Amino acid sequence: MQHFDKDSIDLFPSRYRASLINSLSGFKSANLVGTVNGEGHTNLAMFSSVVHIGASPALVGLVMRPNSVSRHTLENIRETGQYTINQVSESFWREAHQTSARYEGYESEFECTNLTPSYIEHHDAPFVEQSRLKYALLLREIVPITLNDTLFVIGEITDILCDTDAVMEDGYIDIEKLATVSVSGLDSYHTTARLSRIQYAKPNETAQLISLSGELYPLCDGQ
Amino acid sequence: MQHFDKDSIDLFPSRYRASLINSLSGFKSANLVGTVNGEGHTNLAMFSSVVHIGASPALVGLVMRPNSVSRHTLENIRETGQYTINQVSESFWREAHQTSARYEGYESEFECTNLTPSYIEHHDAPFVEQSRLKYALLLREIVPITLNDTLFVIGEITDILCDTDAVMEDGYIDIEKLATVSVSGLDSYHTTARLSRIQYAKPNETAQLISLSGELYPLCDGQ
Repeated sequence: MQHFDKDSIDLFPSRYRASLINSLSGFKSANLVGTVNGEGHTNLAMFSSVVHIGASPALVGLVMRPNSVSRHTLENIRETGQYTINQVSESFWREAHQTSARYEGYESEFECTNLTPSYIEHHDAPFVEQSRLKYALLLREIVPITLNDTLFVIGEITDILCDTDAVMEDGYIDIEKLATVSVSGLDSYHTTARLSRIQYAKPNETAQLISLSGELYPLCDGQ
Repeated sequence: MQHFDKDSIDLFPSRYRASLINSLSGFKSANLVGTVNGEGHTNLAMFSSVVHIGASPALVGLVMRPNSVSRHTLENIRETGQYTINQVSESFWREAHQTSARYEGYESEFECTNLTPSYIEHHDAPFVEQSRLKYALLLREIVPITLNDTLFVIGEITDILCDTDAVMEDGYIDIEKLATVSVSGLDSYHTTARLSRIQYAKPNETAQLISLSGELYPLCDGQ
């Protein structure tokens, strides 16, 4: 097993370091963030840092770099207080990745990548038509992370759009059926294969595997 | 496509809401956080909220609930300023899930789940021997998220331990080769299958697929 200590981490060349450190957090979510500015100009940007914060209220966070390629996304969220998050699926992962190119402010990533904007009433930010699970958010807080001048942008979910047959009876959404992809490192995309759902764990009991719809398998009874 | 609006989201029963909202962020990382208190008592807890914050300095964040089952992890991190993050792989995902049971403070999840603690010099928190990619962190900041009384715990990586043959020449770590798993919703575990690595995107150029080691495929030249 290789051991990189602090001294060797500090000496990594910049690109090597970015690739390696980005691999450490594990598989990451792949989401497109849709925004619009006050003049109606749309923007779409790839993020692998969307993270669940809480269910009640329904809060989601994402890490943003103010001076990066995603600066227009941040400006639009600040200006309008609105954005959408759209899960990336296998059918358009290359187009989604292409949104991370450094387009000019007057160019819309929708047009440049052939992804299609769509809208709902009472929310101005564009969704990605091709996405099979997406939601609208209102900005709640931008928390500065002073350690490296990034921002933790937190929004509350107001509307959820999802392929109907992926929503299980207990509320679990089968995002594997939606062919949602995940990301590793800076540039690797992956589909998934379910090991299983599993019961809520309790001390001194072995949690049993459960079915996709959240029920114990009959054959597991009494195991 | 099903549309849940704000009113229907507000009316979700609590468990249904937790399952559904937890499915929205996409595939999540699966990591065990190892800690120890001042008396040498070890603790191990499952987290699906580990997120990359930056490569230089090498910062990782995780969302914690102070009153949840993971409260001992938080107490130990506050007390010692040290912790480890250990990627969960296919060979021990059920044991990893079992650490989320509400064990008493005097019980160590290592003993209760048959996972093995291991140590390096100059760092007190335990690693998970079975994990094939793991790292030590020093606490840098605990950022309160007042919207729902959670905490965003940020640490700096000081030591990285990884199976040697998973580290590619350009720094990318092949976490799929390590059989690292991902999580969806509250309780579903998944392995992955790589679609591809892909070039850094540039405007007006189609990013080409690249090999696992980060090079263009010869057949793609000039495409």
